[in-house]
Order: sequence, then C-alpha cells, then structure tokens
Amino acid sequence: MYRSQNCGELRIDHVGQEVKLSGWVASNRDLGGMTFIDLRDRYGITQLVFNMDTDAGLCGEARKLGREYVIQIDGVVRERSSKNPQRATGEIEIEVTGLQVLNASKIPPFLIENDTDGGEELRMKYRYLDLRRDAVQSNIIFRSQVAQAIRKNLSAVDFVEVETPFLIKSTPEGARDFVVPSRLNSGQFYALPQSPQTFKQLLMVSGFDKYFQIVKCFRDEDLRADRQPEFTQLDCEMSFVTQDQVLDTFETLVRNIFREILDIELPSFPRMQYDDAMKYYGIDKPDLRFDMKIHHINDLAQGHGFAVFDNAESVVGICAKGCAVNYSNKDIKKLTEWVQRPQIGAKGLVYVKYGADGSIKSSVGKFYDDDQLKTWGEHFGAEAGDMLLILCGEEESTLKQMGQLRLEMGDRLELRDPSEFKPLWVLDFPLLEWDEESSRFHAMHHPFTSPKKADQERMLNGDHETMKALRADAYDMVINGVEIGGGSIRIHDRELQAKNFELLGFTPEEAEDQFGFLMGAFEYGAPPHGGIALGFDRLCAIMRGQNSIRDFIAFPKNNQGRDVMIDAPSPVDGEQLDELSLSLNLKA
Amino acid sequence: MYRSQNCGELRIDHVGQEVKLSGWVASNRDLGGMTFIDLRDRYGITQLVFNMDTDAGLCGEARKLGREYVIQIDGVVRERSSKNPQRATGEIEIEVTGLQVLNASKIPPFLIENDTDGGEELRMKYRYLDLRRDAVQSNIIFRSQVAQAIRKNLSAVDFVEVETPFLIKSTPEGARDFVVPSRLNSGQFYALPQSPQTFKQLLMVSGFDKYFQIVKCFRDEDLRADRQPEFTQLDCEMSFVTQDQVLDTFETLVRNIFREILDIELPSFPRMQYDDAMKYYGIDKPDLRFDMKIHHINDLAQGHGFAVFDNAESVVGICAKGCAVNYSNKDIKKLTEWVQRPQIGAKGLVYVKYGADGSIKSSVGKFYDDDQLKTWGEHFGAEAGDMLLILCGEEESTLKQMGQLRLEMGDRLELRDPSEFKPLWVLDFPLLEWDEESSRFHAMHHPFTSPKKADQERMLNGDHETMKALRADAYDMVINGVEIGGGSIRIHDRELQAKNFELLGFTPEEAEDQFGFLMGAFEYGAPPHGGIALGFDRLCAIMRGQNSIRDFIAFPKNNQGRDVMIDAPSPVDGEQLDELSLSLNLKA
Repeated sequence: MYRSQNCGELRIDHVGQEVKLSGWVASNRDLGGMTFIDLRDRYGITQLVFNMDTDAGLCGEARKLGREYVIQIDGVVRERSSKNPQRATGEIEIEVTGLQVLNASKIPPFLIENDTDGGEELRMKYRYLDLRRDAVQSNIIFRSQVAQAIRKNLSAVDFVEVETPFLIKSTPEGARDFVVPSRLNSGQFYALPQSPQTFKQLLMVSGFDKYFQIVKCFRDEDLRADRQPEFTQLDCEMSFVTQDQVLDTFETLVRNIFREILDIELPSFPRMQYDDAMKYYGIDKPDLRFDMKIHHINDLAQGHGFAVFDNAESVVGICAKGCAVNYSNKDIKKLTEWVQRPQIGAKGLVYVKYGADGSIKSSVGKFYDDDQLKTWGEHFGAEAGDMLLILCGEEESTLKQMGQLRLEMGDRLELRDPSEFKPLWVLDFPLLEWDEESSRFHAMHHPFTSPKKADQERMLNGDHETMKALRADAYDMVINGVEIGGGSIRIHDRELQAKNFELLGFTPEEAEDQFGFLMGAFEYGAPPHGGIALGFDRLCAIMRGQNSIRDFIAFPKNNQGRDVMIDAPSPVDGEQLDELSLSLNLKA
Repeated sequence: MYRSQNCGELRIDHVGQEVKLSGWVASNRDLGGMTFIDLRDRYGITQLVFNMDTDAGLCGEARKLGREYVIQIDGVVRERSSKNPQRATGEIEIEVTGLQVLNASKIPPFLIENDTDGGEELRMKYRYLDLRRDAVQSNIIFRSQVAQAIRKNLSAVDFVEVETPFLIKSTPEGARDFVVPSRLNSGQFYALPQSPQTFKQLLMVSGFDKYFQIVKCFRDEDLRADRQPEFTQLDCEMSFVTQDQVLDTFETLVRNIFREILDIELPSFPRMQYDDAMKYYGIDKPDLRFDMKIHHINDLAQGHGFAVFDNAESVVGICAKGCAVNYSNKDIKKLTEWVQRPQIGAKGLVYVKYGADGSIKSSVGKFYDDDQLKTWGEHFGAEAGDMLLILCGEEESTLKQMGQLRLEMGDRLELRDPSEFKPLWVLDFPLLEWDEESSRFHAMHHPFTSPKKADQERMLNGDHETMKALRADAYDMVINGVEIGGGSIRIHDRELQAKNFELLGFTPEEAEDQFGFLMGAFEYGAPPHGGIALGFDRLCAIMRGQNSIRDFIAFPKNNQGRDVMIDAPSPVDGEQLDELSLSLNLKA
C-alpha cells in the first residue's frame, strides 16, 4: 500500500495518527534544523517536517529531494504551530519517520505553478507536466464534473445516451471531412463525423424519443486560433416536440448545471428574434452583459445636407457611456482606424460628444446644429459625458460593423465581466442564405432544418424571393456573446427534405446517393423531432470565465493541427500505404 | 404540443382524464363495431378504441391506419372491460375523440416485433426499423443505463472522466491502426487509437490519480464474427496502487453495477493464477459455471504398456457426468471427430464409461484392467453413469484441446446457463510470449506491463530462459468464460521500459521515435500506476445473457466492416484525394 490518505484530507482531528502518504515534492525548504516539504497530489498539499535533531539521516535524505520527485512517507500527524488558513490541510503537518523515493525527477522545463514561466509551445510539448498545474488540472476535473452533471440531469428526464458510429460516410456538404481509408474495401473511405446529425435523426425514427450523447466530432478546417480539429459536443434530439419544448428542456438543463456546479442561479433566458438580434446588436449572438443597443437614426440623420448619410441605406449608432471626456481626438482617430481595418471594413466613424459642461462636439458638427445633435442624444438616452459612435452604409454590413464596434467598446469600458452570465435564445433564423458568389442557397443551420410550419407550403411552391424570406424553427443558445450551441426542429417529411436538397443545389441523384438512407427512413413513420448540439469545450470554458477552450482539453492540438507532445501526425511506412491501395503524391 | 403523456404511463387512476398521445400504430384490429389500435412508443403500448356507433367517421379513418403510421390522438381514459395484466397500461384504454396522422408509413420490410421475419442483412439495411423492436431497443437503453451506473459509481470514488484524443500517432506494435491522412501536414497521417493506453499513463504522470473513460477504440482487423472495427472500452487507470487495489476497485464496480441494474448479488470474485487456469481449465478464461476440472493422470496412465500414453508429455482428462449412458459408440465417434477437427487438433479421444450397473467400458480397456480404471474413476470423483474423456500429447496444446472439449461438454450438458454469473480474476500472466516464427518476444498483455516486483531485477539482468519465466502484474476479469477485460500494473521507470522495448525487438531509435514521449514523461516524476480496460459492448451483452455484441451497438458494421444502411465506406472524389496529396493505387 502506498498511502493511507491522500494529500488533501488530513485535518486537526487526525493529530496523533500514524499515516502513510505518497505524492510529488512541490517545494523543499531547508531551514537549518528543520526541512519542510510540501507534498502534492490532485487532492491537495500536505506539509512534511523533517527534524535534524530527531533524525539527522532522514533529514539529510529529505534535503536531497528535488522538485517533482515522487515519494512515499510514513509519519505522525502533528498540529502546526504556524497554521496556514489558505490551505485545507493547513492546521496540521506530518512529522516524518520513514521516506522512500518512488521515482526521481529531472528538473522540469518550466515551473509547475499556476503562474508558470513556460511558454505555450513548451507547455504543449510537456503537456503531462502542464497538466500538473492546478490552473489546468482543475479545468479538466471541472469538465468531468460538468459532463457528469449533464448526464445525471438528462437521464433523470428519460434521455438515453446512445453511441453513434465514428466511421461513417463522407459527404461534401458542410465543412471538410477527415477521411479514413478502408483496407478491407480497397479504394473506399470512411469519414469521421462532423456531428452525429443523421444518426440522431434515425434514432428518432427508431423511437428512442429522447437521445443525447457527449461525443467527439471532427472537422478538417484551416484552424483558427481557438478551433480544434477534434472537439466535443453535447448532442441531443427529442421526438414529438415543439421548438418551445426543446428550448425549455435545455434551458432547464443549463440552469441546473450552473446551479449544481457553480452555485449560480441563472435568470430565465430571454428569447430574441434573429431579426432583432441583427437589428439591435449587429450580430446573431448578442452579449447582453451590457446594453449599448444599436439605434437606427436614418430619420434623424438624413435630409440635412450631409451626403454621406443621405446616400447611405442605413445610419446606425451606439452610445458609449462616459466616453466624451476620455476619448481625445487622437483616441477617436485610433478608433476610426480600428473600424477601418479590413476585418471590420467600415469607411469611417462619426462621433458626437456630449460634454460634462453641456457642450456638444461632433465630427459632423458643420452639418447638424447643436439642437439637432441634442435630439440625437435624447434619442440614444445619452447623458452629459457620453459619446455617440455612428456608422453608415449598406444596412447588413453596417450593422455587422456596428456590432463589432459595440463589442469593442464593451471591452474597453470593461462591461464584459467574465464572472457574470447573460444567457439568451436567438430564434427563428432564416432557413436559407443566398450566396452570390456560388449563386446558390446555403443552409443557414443545416440541410435538415425545418422551415416554420407557416412557411412549409410556401417552400414547396414559392419563387426565389419567397425562399429568401423563409424562416426556420432554428435557435441558438448564447451566453455572454458566445454561441454555446444551436439546433432546430427537423424536417421529417420526405417531400420537404427533397425540396430542401433541391434548393441547396443537390441533384435528385446526389441527394439520394448521400442521404437516401435518411429520406428512406422518413417513409417508414418518422415522428416530428428536433434537437440541439452544444459545444461542450466552449460551455466548460465559459462557465469558468475563460476564453480559450484549449485548457479544457487534456491533450489539444496546436494551430497546425499537430500534437507536438506525441509528434502527430507523422509519416507511415510504405507497406501500410500499400495495404490501403494508396500512394503519396507530394508536390515538390 | 404533441402529447400530454407517453404511451407507457396511463393507469387506472387516470380514468376519466382527457389526454393527448402520440406514437406508432403497432397493430390495428377491426372488430366490426369497434376498432382497436395499439399505440406504441419507447415507454409502452396503450390501447386506443374507436367506436362505430359513437363516431363512424373517425372510426373509418382509424381503420385506414397502417402499421407504423405515426399518429396523434385526443381521447378520454376508460377502464377496460377485459384487462391485460401483461401490460403496465393494461387496465385502461383511450376512447378516441380526435385523430391526426403525423406521418404515414410504407409497409415495413420486416415485422417490427421481437420475433421478426427479417434476416440479418435486411435488418442491418433498415437498422432504424430494427431498432424499433423491443428486443434491440431495450438492449441499447440497457447499455445507456450501464454506462450511467458506471459513471456514477466511479465518480463517487474520485475517478475523473478525461477525454483523450482520437487523432493520434500510428505505431506498428499491436493490431493494425486505422490511419487518417492530414491535409494540413501533407504526407503525414494520424491514427485512430486502439486504446488510450499511453494517454492514460500520461494522465497518471500528470497526477490525475484516478482516471476513467467510456471511449471508442478502433482496430483495423480482418473481422471475425463478433468483432467490430470500432468498439467501446471502459478504460481506467489509478496511481499509487497495488494489483490487489485495482482488483478490489473494479470488482466492487462490477458487483455494484450488477446489483443496481440487474438486482443480482455477485459473489466475490475468486482469484486464480494464470498457471492454474491453464492447468485445470486449459484456457486463460475459465467458465466456472460448471466444475469439470481437468485432471492430470500421467501417474495413473503411464507405464502400463499403452505406448500412446507412455510417449505423451501429458495425459489429461475430464469427467462428464451422466454421459456413460447417453453416449453411444456412434456419439463417441462423432465426439472424436469433433476433437480431431483442425480448429481443435487432437489426435484421438479416449473414453472410460462407468455404467449404472457397475460395469466399466473403455477404448483403452485392453491396456488397463477394471481395477486400474476404477482407480482412475475414483481420482476423477466419477460416479456410476459418468464418463471420462481423455486426451494426450504435448502438454500445452493438449491442455488447450481439453479446455475446448470441456466447454463443448458444458454446452452439451447445458451447464452454461446464460442467467447465471460466475466471475473470476485470472492473475499473474507471463510478461512475454516467445514467438518461434518471428523469433522474438511478444508482450502477453502490452509493452507497458510491469513484471512483478520480484522479477524486475531478473528482467534487467537475466538470460533468455529467465525472460520466458517472468511473471507480470497482469490480470483479466472473466465472467462465464468470457474475458470482460484486462489490465496490469504498468512500468513507471524509464530503464525498465527501455529494457522491455528491447526485449520486444525495438531498436533504441524505434522505441524513442514511437514512445519517446512516454519514456520522457517517466523522467519527470512518474508515480507507480496501473489500470484496466473492460470491453463495454461485451459487458453489456453478458449482463443480458446474450452472446453477440452487435445488438448492443446502435449502428454496427457487418463482417466486411461496412455500414450497409448508410453505405460506408464509399469512394471519395479526386479533388478530396488531391487535397490530401494521395492517389489511389488499385490493383486490377
């Protein structure tokens, strides 16, 4: 036996007991007559004491122990003279009577502490050491707790967790698949699932009624900063449900999780139309931790001789509280450059400052008099000291730019507190997006999403313009401006599904080849159904107020999709490729 | 809203209530004045009644409903005149007042009933219909319950579920990997994990202390009848543990699961040495539901002039109760042919029958007199009516043959009751197996398994013969003759791990290239650790007394590794291969 207790559980009640502990040497302090070692494991840190007077030999051995050595000790629990109230074990220490080194350690390449000196690359290469740091380890343990709580809650309301296959069929729709060559079926490939979408729908056809799964999904995308080629979804589907029932179910789930894990009582989730989200926040995932709604001021701004506004489809603004004073001309110039960056793409930025002294200053002051600008201010609810920021142009892009600027100002004004949680539902997304470039429709959510009941007849018989206006029973869950997940009521009718594929540019043959099994299933008594998928990595990160999902994944890939610790991907030998009937075709 | 209750929850207490139900038409019986429909969902079946006298129109509509139509009804709960005690809802029925067809159904290609008329192939093609059958659906729901119970039990004793990556590195050791070409890293490949072995060991190095995961694993093997290219493991690892502690932990887990899910109290698991399992059962996974131990009778059988026995390394036998009468000469001839099949490979079969009348008959009667054969019978504990079956030859192969014969006799005598559970641990497997053909050692468990403490010194310094005799801290959990899983205490010392790789035929460069990250991790304070992996599909099947894992997997592959429902694997287009820098290389 290596231990009688772990390093986190001894208390004042244990004083006098003989114990055996094992763990890592977190620190080793030689104070002359005494040597103190902090012994660490997942559960905590316990202080060990070696006394030169009592046992010089043992104390000498202890002094030689380096950081991260794995040791096993025998000893007696003693009350500490100087207690450490920061630590659960802080009232006691162990007077060591026996010591055994279980494994030595080289000096780690970075400090195993919350504030480490290790850079990203080094931490990834030695991920097994990085995972010893409480800052990372506690995230992974937290993740496990969230998964456990989700499973408990969903099982309690009759959801069944069903595993769907990982070796499935490649489909060109959506993001790029990872493919897996089949040796037993030469020249053929499996694909790794981007989501279990079609399988969960088939489970509904099978009558499973309520399905969930916490499951890995795969996308071979060019990786952005916080994307991973493999990621985890909480995937769910229900039969005989309306949109409202799906929203209620998963709102309850998320509120329960926050309560059980974080002891936080979330408010009930406001439900916002997609059109309103775009109109008032310039984005389909508004951050409601701060107000700063977008105001549409065509009425106020146009017809006063300022051609830029007069010629714009849309003039919109936000009110930045207290910024009239803080923002110098230079600051405003920088902010203008910020909105003009290609990532944002605005042409320019108009401001109106309402000074603390009642004065009004604006970059369009020569087109509008103070009375007019005062009316603007009243419209925005601006007070003395506030500043309006105004953009104009084509409506859709201008709203997006303003949405970005709103978030930027929220950041600058520190209105986006990571410990505050503002969830909402965004509802009734458009069914289809027209893509000018490829001159075809794309599915806004995915090809299995149902148009709203009122739109189904129009979808089957409508013209091109009708299609653009179709609304879907599709919804996103948003917390703090982050899309946690989304879902929809699905099509369960073969004809409607075929029509949707047609609108998305599939020939009947392509639709049959790729999704014939699903459309076939719809002919054998498919129930109405709908569901949702939540980004599990993202949910965990946001619950802990963190931005990056990477430290919620035990062994993440870097931005090139590499695991630098195990050095994957890597070449395979020719024999293996031969067996797969493949050859490499590398460009010089 | 589609329903106020599901099809399994209405009881006599609900009589008089107006309800709304949705579900599938399981049967439709027209009895002239009345039409009865069984409405089915996952939760049960509720009987609907349509009365010609009350509402002829509605009743007429009901008569048109085919099997598997999805309908929604309104109605009033009534007490049934003829109750069905077999059914939880059998005391009531619904007098229907409103009917809506939610989706029609073509006639299913096979009966959606427990005794279906659908063959394996048809059932796989229409798996979504097969999964409607309670016989299959209840297995999948059972599986979800087992997973949930495992998670609850392991979390309760501080295990953390950590997800390990699916896109890892290919290693030539062990079974064949599925590989995944990387687009972002041309010419390089990920591999899908055969198990999370190295990652869970790294998690121990990271201090996670107790890890588990219910996780998909992948093996590109030529598929045998009941193997799947993707399968699910309960994968576990613990730090600072001895073999006994691992066994206790997972024995407790399995006993808890059986108690919670099946209400069955398993006995504590006997622990048997690998050597004893081979000696007394001729197999490393004895079925203890019946006794019929193998007896070694060289002492009795040799030196009496029967050259076949005299020249054999080993003479072994079993006692088949009651078979003296039942087995005619013709039966024994057939049994002899059975052991002579190439799959078994025995040269011949000797019998000794102890007749009910005290007579003794044997195929070696001319070499042994009745007194001698009587002594044999006493040695085996044979009673009047029993029959000894004896094989001889080279010890190892003869024991294996006898092990097979023992199981065959167990089957024939119906001693292997699928509702009885006899678990055990088999312990102390050899560390290495010498493979004559490739003239090298193979790891009996896997390359990370630790030799027993007493053998570690001998492993580092011993000769070839010593290596053959090394015993490992390796163990298998066996239930009813099926290996449910296995594990070991792992090596946590770099030198010992390097030595093991050397014995397994790795050059130092190969070991470093493939497992350098793990050996590196051992240099930074790796704790002693060990674990286990249980076959989750198999565990579920055996708990329900079933032999095939296929009906515990929602969407299994067939023996060619194909999913015939979605038609995967399948060709991918040339553009996709180009992006992966691959070309097909098909033999004509």
